[in-house]
Amino acid sequence: MRHTIRHVRVTPIAFRDPPLLNAAGIHEPWALRSIIEVETDSALIGINETYGEQAMLEVLAKAAPALQGLSPWDLNAMEARVKALVQPAGARSEFLGEQISLAPGTHVSKNVAKVISAFEVAMLDLQGQLANAPVVDLLGGAVRTSVPFSGYLFFKYAEHIGSPYRPDPFGEGLSPEQLVAQARHMMDHHGFKSLKLKAGVLPPEQEVATMLALAQAFPGTPLRIDPNANWSVATSLKAAEQLQGVLEYYEDPAPGLEGMAEVARACDVPLATNMVVTDFKEFAQNVQKGCPVRIVLSDHHYWGGLRATQQLSRLCQTFEMGLSMHSNSHLGISLIAMTHLAASVPLLSYACDTHYPWQDDDIVQGGRLHFEDGSLRVPRGPGLGVRIDPEALLRLHDNWLHCGIRNRDDLGQMRKYDATFTGKQPRY
Amino acid sequence: MRHTIRHVRVTPIAFRDPPLLNAAGIHEPWALRSIIEVETDSALIGINETYGEQAMLEVLAKAAPALQGLSPWDLNAMEARVKALVQPAGARSEFLGEQISLAPGTHVSKNVAKVISAFEVAMLDLQGQLANAPVVDLLGGAVRTSVPFSGYLFFKYAEHIGSPYRPDPFGEGLSPEQLVAQARHMMDHHGFKSLKLKAGVLPPEQEVATMLALAQAFPGTPLRIDPNANWSVATSLKAAEQLQGVLEYYEDPAPGLEGMAEVARACDVPLATNMVVTDFKEFAQNVQKGCPVRIVLSDHHYWGGLRATQQLSRLCQTFEMGLSMHSNSHLGISLIAMTHLAASVPLLSYACDTHYPWQDDDIVQGGRLHFEDGSLRVPRGPGLGVRIDPEALLRLHDNWLHCGIRNRDDLGQMRKYDATFTGKQPRY
Repeated sequence: MRHTIRHVRVTPIAFRDPPLLNAAGIHEPWALRSIIEVETDSALIGINETYGEQAMLEVLAKAAPALQGLSPWDLNAMEARVKALVQPAGARSEFLGEQISLAPGTHVSKNVAKVISAFEVAMLDLQGQLANAPVVDLLGGAVRTSVPFSGYLFFKYAEHIGSPYRPDPFGEGLSPEQLVAQARHMMDHHGFKSLKLKAGVLPPEQEVATMLALAQAFPGTPLRIDPNANWSVATSLKAAEQLQGVLEYYEDPAPGLEGMAEVARACDVPLATNMVVTDFKEFAQNVQKGCPVRIVLSDHHYWGGLRATQQLSRLCQTFEMGLSMHSNSHLGISLIAMTHLAASVPLLSYACDTHYPWQDDDIVQGGRLHFEDGSLRVPRGPGLGVRIDPEALLRLHDNWLHCGIRNRDDLGQMRKYDATFTGKQPRY
Repeated sequence: MRHTIRHVRVTPIAFRDPPLLNAAGIHEPWALRSIIEVETDSALIGINETYGEQAMLEVLAKAAPALQGLSPWDLNAMEARVKALVQPAGARSEFLGEQISLAPGTHVSKNVAKVISAFEVAMLDLQGQLANAPVVDLLGGAVRTSVPFSGYLFFKYAEHIGSPYRPDPFGEGLSPEQLVAQARHMMDHHGFKSLKLKAGVLPPEQEVATMLALAQAFPGTPLRIDPNANWSVATSLKAAEQLQGVLEYYEDPAPGLEGMAEVARACDVPLATNMVVTDFKEFAQNVQKGCPVRIVLSDHHYWGGLRATQQLSRLCQTFEMGLSMHSNSHLGISLIAMTHLAASVPLLSYACDTHYPWQDDDIVQGGRLHFEDGSLRVPRGPGLGVRIDPEALLRLHDNWLHCGIRNRDDLGQMRKYDATFTGKQPRY
């Protein structure tokens, strides 16, 4: 029997997101995603989760006809059709405000890769159902039965301005002591074995003091800091010196490939990025500069999908670079897709980033997924191994209808707290 | 139901091969391959075809236990196990005589990649049977329904020394007129739309004259020449000038990446290779040299399989290089595997090389495969879409038992014709 795709449904959703601080500002009370359902004429449904900003919803709607009449196996044809439907021409220079550096997933130049990824995972979910195999098997099989994630620490306020809902259980996170407590909470609840601090928020000396406090509180735990390019080269190098022996890798301290190259020349900790190597073209530029960036923090949502990330892995291996994973605020479907992918890629040996512990809701049947010792087990059921909870989908779509947010705007949100905040980078 | 691999059978075979001349010498009367059969406890059999030299048979035997107990989906685990079983340590500097430059597939440093490829294709054939999908679908689906091949022309003698069997129908091929007739025979019988001449055999002026005769006889037909690094840089550049406007690409004129780089600096035809970029490490070296080689002639048999070649395609795309396919003497299973692969890779837009028309026997059920207009249709049945003919397997194994050849030795064979032949390269 031939299975043919006949329908694509895209449902925008919103879920609670704590007041997490970053270089661009602060998270709004609601984070946006969209849920993809790809249905065959045989009534199979493949699912996925991706970005939910207005521009993304529009491009998904524009690209959805690409799937009409394809078999779930026709990933290459889907990619060609999406490329034809979603014109990236001239998009390279268009930016959505100043947030691009923080969230490459919001850049319109990535529309083709984002849409391909959105559809690819749902089609792989269908393939897995057809072949009675988990997605990880379609990617060559698991090289690990569970995937390690890291505890993702944020400077944060105790609650959102205007108190839109009950405050999160983490409380304020501004001082080194509060961040150590936050890390302990993360590790106690989820068992994470490594920690990452989102920095570029407070004056660098406070952030360095926080890292040193974490190093002291959790000796032997791999630690990373990510100032999101909000530090000058001089600040980056000074902090590197103060953090000697503390960092597993140093993520995006200074802006631009040139800034990263300057830091790399004077610093012996490997540099990681999700800001200057965000597509294959930038990968080539980094190679042509002699690989100042040594570790790519990939994200299948904007790299073009699970297979494209596997190809990225081969590129990293070829040029003796490392690979790990970046994340944005997301729910369980994205987490599971990351898990299948990471389980299939030998090179993905660093613990992956995830915002998941900062959310308190989910869209998948059975509710929130659980980390064991900081790792997530790779599901063995067909496809992704998770299904959508229809009631949760209604509830989260209802959030979207009522939250009033249509585009992520960390900068605008920050101005509600501090009208003088410019978001100009590098701040320090 | 879980399907588990319980047995691997490797059957060496030999088949008639015409007296084709090349830089290293001349083909022997029998070409060697091996046929792989991977059997599950559910009695499914996945098949493949690969190298058949003694060293390859030994390494296949050493690696075969790797498959024991794996699911056909466990390609990544298979790769890890093969790596562990097949020690490439120190192998980099070992050469099997002087043939390495001609046939990277004979190099022991490629043992891991060769064995992984040998097993991967057979496992993909099993996966296709499990999923009821052709191998091309497991690779992302077909971007073309048939794959174009090129007519592969050789200088040749009318028959082998000692007349081991009835001469092939092509007759002698030494003069430009004879090669034009050979090309016409190829095009009439198979419909090829492009031509490649294996050169590095006769004095360069005769080979250039042959190319000019082909250009005149078949105007508009893409033409390529492959001197197999048997020309000096000066000879390469002189020939490039004489062939101005004639070549689609220029394959391996001069030896080594440095030699190719020298040619590239003074020549505007893109250089192609299956000699200086034969693995991912050499790919990186070519990039670091500014990409003097612009087109990689891949060969899944030594690049590590169909998935590795897809990854190679992404590497080529990333560095704005082209991709096509190299071949050695082979039968239908290899041809079909190449076809599934080429059908799945958008970048594989050049007509692929194949020695297939030089063979007169086959191992697949139904006998010899047929080109239509120079292209081969991608089979739509499960897996590879071809099965082994058991009688043909017995017959070709019997050839192997009696042919007396255990390692390809074009140089030794040439010395039977000309005791003074040294095979020293570059000859011209």
